[in-house]
Amino acid sequence: MSRGFCLAIHGGAGTIPAAALNTAAAETYHVALRTALKAGWTVLNRGGAAVDAVCAAIVELENDELFNAARGAVFTSAGQLEMDAAIMNGADRAAGALAGICGPKNPIVAARAVMQKSGTVFMIGAGAEAFLQTQDIQFMPPDYFTTPRRLDALHRELTRRVAGMPDTRSDADRHGTVGAVARDAAGNLAAGTSTGGITAKRPGRVGDTPVIGAGTFADNATCAVSTTGTGEVFIRFTAAAEIAARIRYAGQTLEQAASDVIAELSTHGGDGGLIAIGVTGAPVLPFNSSGMYRGFSGVDGVLHTAIHREAFRQLCQ
Amino acid sequence: MSRGFCLAIHGGAGTIPAAALNTAAAETYHVALRTALKAGWTVLNRGGAAVDAVCAAIVELENDELFNAARGAVFTSAGQLEMDAAIMNGADRAAGALAGICGPKNPIVAARAVMQKSGTVFMIGAGAEAFLQTQDIQFMPPDYFTTPRRLDALHRELTRRVAGMPDTRSDADRHGTVGAVARDAAGNLAAGTSTGGITAKRPGRVGDTPVIGAGTFADNATCAVSTTGTGEVFIRFTAAAEIAARIRYAGQTLEQAASDVIAELSTHGGDGGLIAIGVTGAPVLPFNSSGMYRGFSGVDGVLHTAIHREAFRQLCQ
Repeated sequence: MSRGFCLAIHGGAGTIPAAALNTAAAETYHVALRTALKAGWTVLNRGGAAVDAVCAAIVELENDELFNAARGAVFTSAGQLEMDAAIMNGADRAAGALAGICGPKNPIVAARAVMQKSGTVFMIGAGAEAFLQTQDIQFMPPDYFTTPRRLDALHRELTRRVAGMPDTRSDADRHGTVGAVARDAAGNLAAGTSTGGITAKRPGRVGDTPVIGAGTFADNATCAVSTTGTGEVFIRFTAAAEIAARIRYAGQTLEQAASDVIAELSTHGGDGGLIAIGVTGAPVLPFNSSGMYRGFSGVDGVLHTAIHREAFRQLCQ
Repeated sequence: MSRGFCLAIHGGAGTIPAAALNTAAAETYHVALRTALKAGWTVLNRGGAAVDAVCAAIVELENDELFNAARGAVFTSAGQLEMDAAIMNGADRAAGALAGICGPKNPIVAARAVMQKSGTVFMIGAGAEAFLQTQDIQFMPPDYFTTPRRLDALHRELTRRVAGMPDTRSDADRHGTVGAVARDAAGNLAAGTSTGGITAKRPGRVGDTPVIGAGTFADNATCAVSTTGTGEVFIRFTAAAEIAARIRYAGQTLEQAASDVIAELSTHGGDGGLIAIGVTGAPVLPFNSSGMYRGFSGVDGVLHTAIHREAFRQLCQ
C-alpha cells in the first residue's frame, strides 16, 4: 500500500437531495470541493505538514458559503451564530478546540492558534474570543458570516415550530460540517473539523465537532478522523477514538473500523459520515446518510469528488 | 468476583501536601468523603440507579467548600466562576455535559437535566444557563459559590504572575475536581464529574471534565470512569474512553487498563488520577500525583477513604 501523502475532505453529510440538485448546482459543489482539495494538496506536494494541509483545505470550505461553517454557518433559534472547530496533530497529539464562538474569519485557524499558543486545548465563548483577539487572527463582523439561504432556513424552521408541523427538514437543512484529514510525506497525520451546528439549534448546544475523540481525532499510530452528522450520538459513542481503538487493539483495518463504527452509530440513531486516513493506504469516506459532500487526492494530484452515492468524478490537475 | 453494587468517589488529585495537612484537617476531608460515599451508598442500597447514586454523591462534594466544584470552586484569572460538569449512564450511553456555567447550585444535577431534558448532550455558557432556568434546578447567586480560600489562592497566583516568580503552586492550588462512579444492583454503570477548573485559568478554558470519553465515561459493556488532573493531556489521550477500549478490544482487566493509562498519561506530562468501576469486582482508584481525595464502598457499607498513599481508613456504618 502507498505511504505517499494524501488528503480527504468533507463538506458535511447534510446534502441537498439528489432529486433537488440540478447539474449546474451539483457542479458548483464539485468546484468548491476541488478548490479545497487543491489547497490542501498544494501544501502536501511542497512537503508541508499534514496539519497545515488540513487547515488550508478547511479555510477554503469555510470561506465558501455553500457549506455550514464560518461564512454560510447556520443560525441558532435565537438568530445568533455559534461556531465550533477543532484541529489535532497526530505527530504529538497536540489539539486545539473551540465552541460557541463568532468572530474569527476562519475558526479552523483560530483552533490552530489555541493548539499552538494558548497553553490549553479547549476554549469556549467570550473567553476564547478574547484570547483570539490577542493573536494574529482575522476577525469579521457578523454580516460577513450571514447568508440569505441560512436566514431563510432559520425562518422556515421557526415558522414550522410555531405551527406545530412535523419536522420534514432534509439533511441539508438539519446539519452540515466541513472537515479534512491528511497524511503528509513524512507520515504525519492530522484532522480538522469546523461547523455552524444545526439550523435553529438551542443556544449553547455544542455537537461533536470540537470534542476530541468524537468529531475530530488524530494519532500517527492509528488514524486521523473528521466526522459529520448527528453530533449527540457521535459524542456518546466517541466515534473517532473508537475507530482508532479498533485499529490499535482489535487489529481492524481502517476501512473495516470506519465502516463498523458508522454501522454502530446507525443502530443508535446516528446519521452521517466521516473521513479517515491511516498510516498507509488511501482515505476512507463512509456515510449512512443520503449523501456527503466529499473528495480526496493523493500524490498523483487527481481530484476525486462526489456528493451522493454516484461514482467519484475525477479531475486531473 | 462480586457483581454487587458499589461506588467510588474522588475529591480531586489536587491534594494538600501530606506535610501541610495536620490530623484535624485530614479528618475534615475524611468526614466529607464519607458523607458523599454514604449519600451514594444509600441510593444503591435501596435499589436505586447508578446514575442517581453518582448524582447524590457528587451533590455532597459540590456542597462542601473543601472541594473545587460548585461551592468552593476556583476563580478564573478574571475573577469569575466558570464551572464544568458531566454525567453519563452506562445503560444507554445517555450523557449530559456542561461547560462554562455559573448559577446552578449543583452543576451535576444540571448536567443530568441536560441528559434527560434538553434533547442534546453538551451545552455551554449563557445558552446552557437559559435552558437550565426553564428546568426544576436550584440557582444560587455568585456569593454562595465564593469562598475566602479560593479568592486568596487567586490573589496569590495573580501576584506571582505580576512578579514573574516561578510557578511553585501545589497540586491543591492548581487543580481539583470531584467525581463518582457507581454500579447498581441491576448491573448498570454510571459516572459523573464536576469542577471549577484551575485557579486563575484563562477565561473560556475548559478541561476534560465535560468531554465525554476524556474526563467522564460510562458503558455497561466495559466500565465507568471519572478523572481528575491535567485536563489538557486527558483530552488529547481520550483517557476514559481509552480504558474502555483496552478492556473491550485488548482484553485487559479494569485494573491493568486504568493503571496503564495513568502511566501513559504520566509520560506525556499528565498529572492526576481517576476512579473506575467495571462490570464486576471492586473499583480501582489509581493516581500518579502526590495524593487524591478518594473513597469507595460496597454492599457491606464499609466506608473506605484515603488522601495520600496511606492505607484506606475504614469506617463501619
